[in-house]
This record gives sequence, structure tokens and C-alpha cells, in this order.
Amino acid sequence: TEGFNSRWAPSVAMEAVLKPSCDLPKDMPKIRGYDFNQGVDLHAVLKSYLTTGFQASSLALAIQEINTMIEKRLEPVEEGEGNESETPKSGCTIFLGYTSNLISSGVRESIRYLAQHKMVDVIVTTAGGVEEDLIKCLAHTYLGDFSLPGKELRLRGINRIGNLVVPNDNYCKFEDWLMPILDQMLLEQNTEGTRWTPSKMIHRLGKEINNTDSVYYWAYKNNIPVFSPALTDGSLGDMIYFHSYKNPGLILDIVEDIRRLNSQAVFAKRTGMIILGGGLVKHHIANANLMRNGADYVVYVNTGQEFDGSDSGARPDEAVSWGKIRTDAKPVKVYADASLVFPLIVAETFAQHVDKLAAGKKTD
Amino acid sequence: TEGFNSRWAPSVAMEAVLKPSCDLPKDMPKIRGYDFNQGVDLHAVLKSYLTTGFQASSLALAIQEINTMIEKRLEPVEEGEGNESETPKSGCTIFLGYTSNLISSGVRESIRYLAQHKMVDVIVTTAGGVEEDLIKCLAHTYLGDFSLPGKELRLRGINRIGNLVVPNDNYCKFEDWLMPILDQMLLEQNTEGTRWTPSKMIHRLGKEINNTDSVYYWAYKNNIPVFSPALTDGSLGDMIYFHSYKNPGLILDIVEDIRRLNSQAVFAKRTGMIILGGGLVKHHIANANLMRNGADYVVYVNTGQEFDGSDSGARPDEAVSWGKIRTDAKPVKVYADASLVFPLIVAETFAQHVDKLAAGKKTD
Amino acid sequence: TEGFNSRWAPSVAMEAVLKPSCDLPKDMPKIRGYDFNQGVDLHAVLKSYLTTGFQASSLALAIQEINTMIEKRLEPVEEGEGNESETPKSGCTIFLGYTSNLISSGVRESIRYLAQHKMVDVIVTTAGGVEEDLIKCLAHTYLGDFSLPGKELRLRGINRIGNLVVPNDNYCKFEDWLMPILDQMLLEQNTEGTRWTPSKMIHRLGKEINNTDSVYYWAYKNNIPVFSPALTDGSLGDMIYFHSYKNPGLILDIVEDIRRLNSQAVFAKRTGMIILGGGLVKHHIANANLMRNGADYVVYVNTGQEFDGSDSGARPDEAVSWGKIRTDAKPVKVYADASLVFPLIVAETFAQHVDKLAAGKKTD
Amino acid sequence: TEGFNSRWAPSVAMEAVLKPSCDLPKDMPKIRGYDFNQGVDLHAVLKSYLTTGFQASSLALAIQEINTMIEKRLEPVEEGEGNESETPKSGCTIFLGYTSNLISSGVRESIRYLAQHKMVDVIVTTAGGVEEDLIKCLAHTYLGDFSLPGKELRLRGINRIGNLVVPNDNYCKFEDWLMPILDQMLLEQNTEGTRWTPSKMIHRLGKEINNTDSVYYWAYKNNIPVFSPALTDGSLGDMIYFHSYKNPGLILDIVEDIRRLNSQAVFAKRTGMIILGGGLVKHHIANANLMRNGADYVVYVNTGQEFDGSDSGARPDEAVSWGKIRTDAKPVKVYADASLVFPLIVAETFAQHVDKLAAGKKTD
Repeated sequence: TEGFNSRWAPSVAMEAVLKPSCDLPKDMPKIRGYDFNQGVDLHAVLKSYLTTGFQASSLALAIQEINTMIEKRLEPVEEGEGNESETPKSGCTIFLGYTSNLISSGVRESIRYLAQHKMVDVIVTTAGGVEEDLIKCLAHTYLGDFSLPGKELRLRGINRIGNLVVPNDNYCKFEDWLMPILDQMLLEQNTEGTRWTPSKMIHRLGKEINNTDSVYYWAYKNNIPVFSPALTDGSLGDMIYFHSYKNPGLILDIVEDIRRLNSQAVFAKRTGMIILGGGLVKHHIANANLMRNGADYVVYVNTGQEFDGSDSGARPDEAVSWGKIRTDAKPVKVYADASLVFPLIVAETFAQHVDKLAAGKKTD
Repeated sequence: TEGFNSRWAPSVAMEAVLKPSCDLPKDMPKIRGYDFNQGVDLHAVLKSYLTTGFQASSLALAIQEINTMIEKRLEPVEEGEGNESETPKSGCTIFLGYTSNLISSGVRESIRYLAQHKMVDVIVTTAGGVEEDLIKCLAHTYLGDFSLPGKELRLRGINRIGNLVVPNDNYCKFEDWLMPILDQMLLEQNTEGTRWTPSKMIHRLGKEINNTDSVYYWAYKNNIPVFSPALTDGSLGDMIYFHSYKNPGLILDIVEDIRRLNSQAVFAKRTGMIILGGGLVKHHIANANLMRNGADYVVYVNTGQEFDGSDSGARPDEAVSWGKIRTDAKPVKVYADASLVFPLIVAETFAQHVDKLAAGKKTD
Repeated sequence: TEGFNSRWAPSVAMEAVLKPSCDLPKDMPKIRGYDFNQGVDLHAVLKSYLTTGFQASSLALAIQEINTMIEKRLEPVEEGEGNESETPKSGCTIFLGYTSNLISSGVRESIRYLAQHKMVDVIVTTAGGVEEDLIKCLAHTYLGDFSLPGKELRLRGINRIGNLVVPNDNYCKFEDWLMPILDQMLLEQNTEGTRWTPSKMIHRLGKEINNTDSVYYWAYKNNIPVFSPALTDGSLGDMIYFHSYKNPGLILDIVEDIRRLNSQAVFAKRTGMIILGGGLVKHHIANANLMRNGADYVVYVNTGQEFDGSDSGARPDEAVSWGKIRTDAKPVKVYADASLVFPLIVAETFAQHVDKLAAGKKTD
Repeated sequence: TEGFNSRWAPSVAMEAVLKPSCDLPKDMPKIRGYDFNQGVDLHAVLKSYLTTGFQASSLALAIQEINTMIEKRLEPVEEGEGNESETPKSGCTIFLGYTSNLISSGVRESIRYLAQHKMVDVIVTTAGGVEEDLIKCLAHTYLGDFSLPGKELRLRGINRIGNLVVPNDNYCKFEDWLMPILDQMLLEQNTEGTRWTPSKMIHRLGKEINNTDSVYYWAYKNNIPVFSPALTDGSLGDMIYFHSYKNPGLILDIVEDIRRLNSQAVFAKRTGMIILGGGLVKHHIANANLMRNGADYVVYVNTGQEFDGSDSGARPDEAVSWGKIRTDAKPVKVYADASLVFPLIVAETFAQHVDKLAAGKKTD
């Protein structure tokens, strides 16, 4: 037996458990959460997140990182600065990427605010990220539930997106709206030699929708390029497909857009990436930033994990190895559904600087 | 070929894409996010989460659910109400569960606030959830990083908890503090016949720490029972193990505690469960609520998923099948790290009602 | 107090805990795992997964679903069957989608086997899913570790993909190989009027690589169309971008491809979808299947979760609501990294039927 | 504009994209998956997982790590080896931990095989991990579906565990079986002075169930200690609660068990940890191994993530910082539902060595 008559626990155990510590660096923040005895002050609660730990700290660091992007963006740019020969437009070019579902959700209003006030410089999204914004100008999306049964919904013509529902009629209205525009685009291609690309088409749709609720209306007005190379992968593609029978010949070229996107990174003085979600939007922005040997400031917000080797779930440090993020950057990933955190981020960053940032934009 | 000369896309495609919708119920909320053109009002941002979708909506529903718990808790109770013969203490008995890491983080201060103002009735946590609170009264925990290398940390006597670091000296201080208390507990067992259980020991530790920063100090002062059946699974267990050599004989009985916990559910008028994280704390509270054929109000906050069949990741609807949640309840699960959302939840619920809830508690 | 002198536990508790059951349907499988006392028989272990529960059962159901796709695919097709006027090529058109990382990994060899033996009919992947296959014909990818530090890797020109590493020289070799092909493609565009699309380009690259290790060599040889609308989003895009300076003018049109992809679904008798990972590949295949009012057989393998409202993480039942999966289908989602399960799936499905499936394909 | 007339792409882009590589270490494995042209050989498929990448590689490494545990376990032990004064029983003490759901699933049969052949030395599980094994000797568990609605199930007395269902009658049968045993245990406590602990009770239940399908029958027969400090957190707790009314007085002490568990680690020559799932079972085994300054060999299989700071989701490297894993160990985490991988692991490890491992155990 193990000697129950000993006065002392085994020394290996005591030494392992009671191993003394070396000193920590003096400047490490102490963990301390918000004290509600001081009253309810949500701004102060969010300030306290830096010393709360886990993803609360990540959120606080993301807010810091974006505030640095904004500060650098406001710095004046002199001729000869930036890469290559071009003079950049601002001290920091901000790339914003987001997946389709965020436009279906109420995060759209935060994104629209950023476009309206020209607070970001380049947008990358998916087909759904474009069309859902336009469709919302035609009809509503509703709050449902993740567990609504698919078969019953389909029989009733109701589409589910997570816990949202969208009547299929919305897509019928979209067809009515879009078809004449496609006709017109084809006419311009054939008569004026317009070489359509996804980014040109998105600006055209933003112009046509002519609705201040729309992200792409403001992107058009404020001349923010919107890239979406797989623009046919969604309802827009369905309509383009139908249109190819009715009135064939439209061409959407993705070569010109990759050059245009990469130029946004190459000729920037500094760049910041704010990427909500994964997949194409995450990779496309990061890949463009490889063209300048890496972004300077980075915030990812997503729920992906790295263990399956996906780009979506990769930590920012993987992009550092590729040269997509600078080796001296301090990128931040917030592991969260963007709907939970992005409105809070906007509240603590862009919306704090609306006056300074708004100079020069068109807002009506 | 497929007939490129047709004027119309295949009818199967057009019918599938343009399927008409039935009407939705009139009262479904429309999705609409916060409009920052109205200025930065964080309370209004959180209000807008209900119509933002995804986990933003889940957070808003969780806030509603907890506010309902609070409202019911404030209802007067008449004799003869509640199950069986006991008269319940309030209109809704609130069970709060949380894992150890949340006490290591700054969420501890939110939990301490709830205990201090006697806003919850029963607490369930793990061993770490107890000892980390006490240790924080002796020395600090710091903000580090998820990627700090384990080997270097061990060589320097620094322990990592996610992105937090804790000097091992803190645990040495804990030993110094705890050993005399264990001696005293053993003495009382042997001389006064005290039958120690985890919940009795936790109250004793809360009394001994005598520190207003401590959750368990307030749990002791306000007579909130704290259950932790595996109280030996942590630093407390290490110390109890060492103590078993130096001064053997202490007994910690878990039978009396299961009866005490179940009684909290059985004799309640209504119950609410607020469970942060998974594992033992989630199951233990839910199982106790089976004893009353289910909790009435439920909020889970965790990052677990159901696909592996774990209880930790199970949706509330699984607990409905077991009778742990009422079949007419509207339980809410928020898929998020609790550090991100729990302080916001407290801000929008308990902290709004501090005056009403505070009646009768001890606060110094 | 709660009456410790009672002989019986509270009746509410006893009734809740001991609630009697109604009978289950007679044909529900009993849970029973593999008994290793019968020796190690991996095929039998996988058979036992059906009655093992959780994702083991999902894997077994995925194997069944794919075997049904194969069985239907082998059924003879008569004139007039299928949608619209086209006679489909087989009894079931199988769509295979996968993300880039799977080609970087050794799952590539399973996918190459399917293309080599013409076991699938349509492929959808991302830019990386194309270029990584071609690059592997030029140089190797290696096993590394998820925690290799990005900065050190970048300084040494080593790119990380999860726990894989790829020397950046591989991409330099790719440039050397690709540039003359881009020159030639542009020449053909300008002289022969070739209207390039991503699918045409991918076949051309498969022809040029002329290597039996390549997925796209076999896709070309066996005339399996490969769709990748965002083909510029990766190293291919980098090279196309460079080429646009050296030799400008190449056009890649995505409109013709969406019609071609949709036609694969519309004119099929039945369809099956096998989708590994999320993002574009998942949505693009499902959206094409909306054109036929839904796929008949469906297997998803991914690690995404539905709670953030992403299409990537959505359960198949969400696609049912959209008409992308038939309302009477029995779709299967396996929650797993595809590297863990897809080789096992191929072993238990396609590879079991290689002789029957191989009729008519080119294999050298 | 950006100079479309230049012959060369911007140099910053070309240099970033075409950065040359340093040499990789010569011994890095090349990524290459299984070639099904060599026929279906599942053992060879699993061998190929080492060079497949992502979690396939993790699985292959886990198999290697466990085969090392087994090899070390078979080494003869000489007097004076091991920590402190005790002579260890084998060259490597293997700790196996698993959560309740795995016993509900068919993974139980793999675990039972390990206990039957005395292939592991110490087991740690939760209350459900004990009772579900015993209940399965009384009645069956069935395969259902994750989406079966909780309310309907409750009304019919059917409990859901992920995609499994268990008739509530099973728990009624368990009560009938258990109550007389509790009476007898109390009698022995009162007449013979038996000091019950969870581990003693579990062995007693294993003896009483007397069924070769049971994990705990074999744990009893082969004298494998089973630790479960929160043994009251489940149906066993429900029954103990009921019994406390009918026949009060039973005491279950958790102090003696923590000393017994820690001793298993302290007096071992080497230790291996195989931990399926998170929560208590993961922490409890790791904490015991702190008592020997860390385990030598480690395999985790779970789906948890580190971002929320939970111990469940922490990578092994976090446990290195605490001294729970040796600083020179090469621990492996497989990110997967254990139902998918654990039977495959047993097939490629323990079941390969059944003859050597079986010496000295009782098997009937």
C-alpha cells in the first residue's frame, strides 16, 4: 500500500503542485470585470472587456485595432507615399468583407451606415451579400426560428436563413425589378462596348435601386468599389440564367476586377482588413493584401475553427505565413457570430468618429 | 444540346425559383438592425438585437427570459403555493450555474454582483469555480494570450487558462490559507459531529475569506447555497489530498447535498435556470429541475454543439424530452462565449432591478 | 424544513422521474457498437457505425445515401425521362463539391480517383481547389503543425495551410508553368474568338498538366465539367493579375458557366450532391439544384454550425425550405473534418463499385 | 490611374507573391492520400492518414501515441522504479476518461472491451457514464434523430440523447434494480463500518449487475478503479435522493477517492491519458497527473474549442503549462466526435495487442 501512515504527501506531488513562479512582466493587465455597483454604463462595460479575458478581451482588442485603422486613415497623405507610383487616397485603406447572411440580418444596417458615411474603402461580399440588400428594398425579411421545418416552409414558399425567414415572393419581386436592368446592361454592352464586371454591375444595381436603405446605393454614391467574383452564385445568377434564354449574350468578366481589387491594396499607404465570416470574402481580401506584402491592421469576426485546415477557420497567424498580413501586425480574431458583436464594434469605433470621417462623402 | 434557341428558361427552373408564397403570420417581427444615424445609444443597440437575427436575437430573447424570471421572482407567494407542502420563498427560484473559467475571467465580478444582492437563489459550479474566486482574493490573474507556449510557462511556474495566466504562487498562497481551515473542519467533524458536504464547506470558505470581492463570501452572507459535488476536482482536491497525509480523516459527503439541491427545485413555486457553460454545472441544475417536472424559464449560454451527443452541447429541447424543462417553456440558448454576453445580460436584467431585488439581503 | 421524517420522496419528483413510456416503433435500431472480441475487421466496424449513434451513425447513413446515388446512377435511362426535353446521361447526376484545403490535403487522391473513374458528373470547387492540384504536380506539400509561427514561416518563404506547409517556391514554379498557357489562351481568344469561362479554363489546365496524379487531368479526359466562378480568388488570380500587365486583354466570363452548371441539374433524371466543406462550393451546387426543384440525394460533410445563420453551417433542412433539396429527400450531414471521413466513405461506396461504374470512361 | 500601360505588374506584388523559400527539413513527410487504385484496404487507408493532413493526421498520431503507451505498459518494471517508494504495476499506467454520452452510444462496446481485457488501469467518468452502462443491461437504447421534438417525446416518456432515444421505463427498471442494493449498502455502512466512496460503489454495482456486457462488471472483475466524484449527478443521484426518504443515512465520501486517484498517478512509472470528451473527466485525469509532474503520453478526442477559455476545449499545451502533461511529451488532440474515431483507434491499437495485453486478467 501507499503508506497511509506517512505524515507527508509524496514529495513529487507537493513539488509539482507548489512549484514557485518567476515574475510576470510588470505591465500585464490584471483581470477584473465590470462592477455593476457603479451603475449600468454600457460603454464602461465594454471598456472593462479588455480585462475580462477570453473573447471579451478579443472584442476589446478588435475595437482598439479598428480605432487604430481609423486614426491612420485620417492621417494626411503626401505625394510619393504608398507603394509604387500611385499616391494613396488616405493613410489607411480599409477593406470590409462580409458574408450574405449578415446582409439578410440586421447587421446590414451597420454596414449600410459605414457605406453611407464612406467609412470603408473597399467592399468584398458574395452574391447573396449583394442581392439580399437589394431585395430588402423591395420586401421584408422576418424573424423566425432555427427549427422551423423545411418541408412545411417549402410548401408555403417561405425560405429560411438560420432563424430568419424570407417569403419567396421577395425573389419574384426581385426578378421583376432586375430583368429590365439586365436588358439594358446587355444593350449597353452591345451598343456602347461596356465590358461588364461584377463590380461594375453592383454599382449599377446600387444606382438603380436608388434607396437610402441600401448598402449598394451608398457604395455607388460614395464610389466604394464592391467586389464579388462569383456574382452568379445566388438569385442574381438565377436571373442571369433566365435572362440568358430570353435575351442571351451578357458577359461578366472577372479578370478586370481582380486587377482592380489588387490595385486597391498595392497602391495603399497602409491597409486594414475587417472580415466578418469566412469563405470567399475572407480569402479574397487577404489575397489582395498579399499584393502589398500584407495588411497592417486586421480584425476577423467568425465562428470557424482551424482544425479542419479550412481558410475560413484559420487564425490570422496562418495568413502571416503567406504574406497576407504583415509580420509585425497584431491581428485580432473574435470568435463570435458577427450579429452579436459587429453593431457593438461599430458603436465603439466608426460611430465615435462620424464627424471626422464624414468629410467629403456624399450622403444624400 | 439543351436548346440555346429557346426563348424561355426551362419551366422546371422557373417554377422552382419563382414559387409563390403563402402569407406569413401578421405578428412576425421584421428584421431591422440599429441605425447609427440616430447616434450611439448602446441600450438601444441591444434593444435592436431582437430584430437583428441570429445570435443577436437569441441574446435579446435571453434578456427577455431573465427579465421574466425576475418579474415572477418578485411576485408575492401565498401559503400553499408551490409543490408539496413547503411554502416557497419567492415566486421564482433562480438557479445559476457556471464553469470554473468564468470565475477566472472578469465575469466573476458580474456573478459576485448577483450573489452580493441576493439576485439568485441557488448556485452550482465546479471545484475551480469555487477556488479561483478565493485565490483571486489572495493574488491576481492576468491577461495573456492563447498561444503562449506551455513548456516555457511551466518552466517559469505560470499557468495558462485560455488567454489568462495565473502565477503558480497563487496556488501556494491558497495552500497556506486553506490548510488551517481544513484542520479546523476536521476538528469540528471529530468533536462536534459536523457532517461536511461540499455546500457546507463552500459556505465555510466564503465566511473565512471574509472579502467583499468574493462570490462565496456573499453566498455565505446571503445564505445562497452553492453546490459542487466534485469539489475535490481541482486545487481544493490537491490540498485535501495533501491534508489527508498531514491530518487524515476528513469526510465530504455528497448524498446530503443532492437532497438539499433537489429540494430547492421541488419546493419552488416556479424555477428559472441560467447556465453558463456545459459539463457538470449544466447537467446538475437541469437534473434537479427534473424533480419538479421541469424548469419554467431557461437561458443557456455556451459554445457547445449537439452533434456529438454531449449533454454540454444539447439544445434545451433535449432537456424538454427528459422533463428537465417544462413542455410549455420557451427556453433560450445563446451560442457564445459567456464573457462576451453575460455582462451585457446582467446590465439589461438584474442591474435594472437592483432596488426591487435588493430587499432583505445583507450587503456588508 | 422539508420534512426529513417523511418515508417518501416528494410525489412530484417521483412522478417526474418515473414517468412511464409509450412503446417505440418496432423497427427502431438498437444501439450496439462493434465487439472487438470478434477480431479486427474494419469493414465490420464501419458497418456497426449505423447502430453506434451520434456522428458514427451519420457516417453510416452518408455511406448508405451515396450507395443509393450510385445504384440510381447505374439505372438505364430511357428517352423522354428527366426534366424538359433533354435525355439525361444517367439515372443520377452526381455533383461533387469541395474546398481548396481538401486538395492541399491527401483527400486529393480520393477525389482524383473519382474523377479518374468518372464516378461523378459535375465538380464545383474554389480557385485553390484547382491550383493546388496543379501545383502538386510540380512540387510537394508537407505535413507540419497547426502551431508553427507565421512570422518565422514567412521569413523563410513557407506557407501554412492548417497543419500542412507549402514552400513558396511551389507557387513560383506554378507561375513559370502557367504564364505561357495564359499567353496561348489570350491568343486563342483574340484569333479564334474563344470565349473563356472558368470551366473551359480548368479543362484546358487539366489538359496541359498532362499528369495522371491530377484531378483536373482526369476531369478533362473524362469530360467532367468543373465550375469555379471565383477562379481569380487565389494563385491563379495572382498570375492572371501579373499577366494583365505583361499581356493584357484576357476575359473570363462567368455567365456562360452559370447556364452550363444549371443545365447539369435541370436536365438530370435525378441528382445527388456530395459537398465537402462550406462556402461557395456548398451554395453553388445547392443553388443549381434549385433549378430542378431540389436534389434527390444529399451528403454534406463539414464542421460548420447553424447558429450564426451562415449557409456553410446550415443543416440540409434549410436547403429544403429553398427548394434546393427535395421535400421527400433524406439528406445526411456528417459533422466532421472531411479528411477524417471522406476516404472511409469512398472505401465503402465508389471503390466498392469500381467495375460497374468504370464502363465508358477513359483511364489513360 | 494605375498605369495600365506598364509591362510589369507592381514590383511589391511580384516580390511578395514570388518570395523564394528556404529549404524545409529533409524528414518532413510529404502529403499523399490513399490511392484506391490499389484496392480497398481499410487498414492501409488508416495508415495513409499520417500523410493526409488535418485531423486525418491527428488520428494517425493518436494511434501512434496509444501504441507507444501500450509498448511502454508491456515493459517489465523493476523494484525501485517509479516515483516515491511504491513499485508500479506496469511500465505505463493508462488513464481512460469518457463522458456519459459515449456509454449511451455504441462506443460503450469498445470501452467494455478495454475493461474486459484489462487494457487500461484507471477509469474516470461521470454519473451518467456509470448508470447508462448498467441500465443498458436492463433494457435497450435506440437510434432516433437529433430533431425529434422534445415536447412530444416527453408526453410519450421517451428521453433523447443527441440522436439516441431511451424509453423512460429503462430508468424505472433501474430504480427497481438499484433500491435493494442501496438498502444493502446502507446496512453494511451501519453494521460493518463500510465507508462508501464513489469508486467503491461503482465496483459494487459492477459486481451486482453480473453481466458480461457491462463495462463496470469487468472493471470490478479486473480490479480497475473507476472514479466519478459527482456520482450523484444523474439517475443514480435521483435514486439516492429517493432512498434518502425511504431509508436515510447513506454517506458517499469523495475525500478517500481523491487520494486513491492521485496515488494511481504518483506511484506510476509512466502514465498515459486517453480522454474522450471534456468537462470533469478531462480535468480530473489531468489534475491527478499533475501529482506526478505530468503525464508522459496523451490523447484527447473531443469537439471543444479553446476560444472560450474552457478547460474542455483547451489544447494539450495548456495542460503543459500547469504541469499536468510533461514538458517533453508530444500530446495529440483529435478534433472529432469520439463515436467516429474511437472504434477505429481501438482497432488500430489495443485490439492489435490483445494477446500480449491479456496476460493476467480475468475474462469470465
